[in-house]
Amino acid sequence: MDNALYVDQLVGNARKASRLLRSLSATKRNEVLLRVSQLLREQVPQILIANQVDVEAAIAQGLSKAMIDRLTLTQKRVEDMAMALEEIAVFSDPLGKILEFRTMSNGAALSRVTTPIGTVLFIYESRPNVTIDGAALCFKSGNAVILRGGKESLSSSRILADLFRQALKAFDLPEDAVQLVTSADRQIVSLLLQKNEGLDLVIPRGGEGLIRMVVEQSRVPVIKHYKGVCHIYVHPSAKMETVSDLLINAKVQRPSACNAMETLLIDQAIDANWVKKWLVDLQAQGVTLHGCAQACDLLPGILPINDSTEYHTEYLDLHLSVRIVSSVEEAVNHIETYGSSHTESILAQDLTAQEYFLANVDSSSVMVNASTRLADGGVYGLGAEVGISTDKLHARGPMGVDSLTTYKWILLGQGQLRI
Amino acid sequence: MDNALYVDQLVGNARKASRLLRSLSATKRNEVLLRVSQLLREQVPQILIANQVDVEAAIAQGLSKAMIDRLTLTQKRVEDMAMALEEIAVFSDPLGKILEFRTMSNGAALSRVTTPIGTVLFIYESRPNVTIDGAALCFKSGNAVILRGGKESLSSSRILADLFRQALKAFDLPEDAVQLVTSADRQIVSLLLQKNEGLDLVIPRGGEGLIRMVVEQSRVPVIKHYKGVCHIYVHPSAKMETVSDLLINAKVQRPSACNAMETLLIDQAIDANWVKKWLVDLQAQGVTLHGCAQACDLLPGILPINDSTEYHTEYLDLHLSVRIVSSVEEAVNHIETYGSSHTESILAQDLTAQEYFLANVDSSSVMVNASTRLADGGVYGLGAEVGISTDKLHARGPMGVDSLTTYKWILLGQGQLRI
Repeated sequence: MDNALYVDQLVGNARKASRLLRSLSATKRNEVLLRVSQLLREQVPQILIANQVDVEAAIAQGLSKAMIDRLTLTQKRVEDMAMALEEIAVFSDPLGKILEFRTMSNGAALSRVTTPIGTVLFIYESRPNVTIDGAALCFKSGNAVILRGGKESLSSSRILADLFRQALKAFDLPEDAVQLVTSADRQIVSLLLQKNEGLDLVIPRGGEGLIRMVVEQSRVPVIKHYKGVCHIYVHPSAKMETVSDLLINAKVQRPSACNAMETLLIDQAIDANWVKKWLVDLQAQGVTLHGCAQACDLLPGILPINDSTEYHTEYLDLHLSVRIVSSVEEAVNHIETYGSSHTESILAQDLTAQEYFLANVDSSSVMVNASTRLADGGVYGLGAEVGISTDKLHARGPMGVDSLTTYKWILLGQGQLRI
Repeated sequence: MDNALYVDQLVGNARKASRLLRSLSATKRNEVLLRVSQLLREQVPQILIANQVDVEAAIAQGLSKAMIDRLTLTQKRVEDMAMALEEIAVFSDPLGKILEFRTMSNGAALSRVTTPIGTVLFIYESRPNVTIDGAALCFKSGNAVILRGGKESLSSSRILADLFRQALKAFDLPEDAVQLVTSADRQIVSLLLQKNEGLDLVIPRGGEGLIRMVVEQSRVPVIKHYKGVCHIYVHPSAKMETVSDLLINAKVQRPSACNAMETLLIDQAIDANWVKKWLVDLQAQGVTLHGCAQACDLLPGILPINDSTEYHTEYLDLHLSVRIVSSVEEAVNHIETYGSSHTESILAQDLTAQEYFLANVDSSSVMVNASTRLADGGVYGLGAEVGISTDKLHARGPMGVDSLTTYKWILLGQGQLRI
């Protein structure tokens, strides 16, 4: 089929399905999610066979080990997907929540109530489980979704999307609530991104390249998470003996996460012996340090940072930039210049320093005496995590399934006119 | 200066100013607004002289009377601007509002607090008062703004923006919190719309052409209001004797407003004598009716609608489309097909019909027994109105100054780690 026609069909189907989802009860939506979970468990062998096709093609093409690992499904991973669905099903309903209510001076009742956004385009890379995850989060929030995964996982994604559609059909619901783009042609994505009259939202999930491509092309609103260059600043008033544990947790516990610390800013007024201890403790955990000249002087084995643009680096690995700063103001300036407005933390007992940091750091999460790794939808109690938004509109920071809703104003009158 | 350089400078200045606005107290922000109000009153003669330049140029170019009226400032109109500033100053502070607060299971305190969005590009057409209005709404919410008005009002906008900057300077605040694009070169707008790293939001205010241009070009998130094709559906259970008043209010009270009724849907089960009365009452108010075949049969003087795409029309004038429908379901289908998801109202006493309409109409405002003209920030109690969003993300329907804020998550810990 012609690409333009195919895209029109995808969008038209999604809109049609979306109309029926609008008034679907929470009970029904959750029943569907549980049915998908059940189908996943029943069809493990078929899923693994379909996945094998992708894995073998990836091996034949010589894709990286990491890539092949991301692609590969196992019985355990399918079980994880089934469990994730059960969790999403038990979360509270994001729809029909009354956000505001008041009686107007003219006597009418005005409320603002959450509703589905409508149609969502979900673009992701090679992990096949995102097919289920993206479909489930959108369906839970009453949205029709068009899924577009990486071409490497097409065979796996196809069987997973089909399972979801089977469950929809079993409940006599529109299968097109979940559609998978089955062609790897990139033009289809470009065409979809022009459909601002039919699509309400795009969520790209993946590396910086994917996200930039979407932002450059899209006329449809995008919620994205760019990179996380997260900072911890240690103020002279910090509890010195607790610092190492916090730094190790923020850097080492899961270095590949976007909320892991990438740059450590240390106040120059702190006793050098403490600073050396923290850095040695990090090195003992396998962290390679990259430091400013002052940091390099403290300890052997620190790689010098000669070009300050290096401070923009998101290592996503056991590497850390270290810079000695003269004050909380300089720390905040550094964050403003090199940060990505994701998550920053100050370690300090001094209230003035805490307040300055909280008021002047413009990041989605700003913390005092805590690990940046806490910036997470699950930890924040938001239920199913859709992502961590680095945008400022609609949703900022950790996003729960609530971020896939909008609202409408409902006005109940008895003949009220505009005066 | 080179356009690219000029744009870089505008954006850089705005970002720098935005950093200082972040921590500015509400008192200080309101004082500035009141000072601008005072300066407006003091400098009426100078403002009128600057405005005269625009008006004479417009006359020389043979612009329409309506356009010249929109351009023209009078002492009264300047006074209106000064009063609008005083109103914005007394509205409650949109910043620092605690949207959520909880103690996490790990003992840390988590809150979600409103903050400025950062930098806003405000694009508008020929009304010079929008210069003050846009600057005031952005400043009230702690945002730096770049204003880009129509070239017809450049001389007026320039003096108004300068007044705002004088007030900022008098308080030793960054003048670049308010910048006016002083070149009419359209390339500058195109370049600004590419600056998604420096600008956080674009608000276009004006006709459909302007808004489409912005959506097509912008990589910066946009909040927009497209057109309002608002509907009223009269159900057989409506209080027949109250219908005329409601219809007249919705159509006639201010036909040029986006929340005025553009299409009237009447259930075929209603006694034709009532329907004729309502239509005659509308005609008596000077409304030209455009009707489906069934409507045309009821009464003389109704212009036939031969092509159903006419139902997409936003007249913004004393014209109205009238269609006889068979049921509430058909009314909802009509709205889904031809509406603009702005504001729709059902006139009905029957609860089932009301509920069906409320659940299935996906518009920013959905009303029961009320005039669509009530969909308004002032009427909804939102304070200063930024616009009526037809978007679904971030803000939907009437937007107050709150819609110019985002939030950050603040986590206060005592050494909490991610487990």
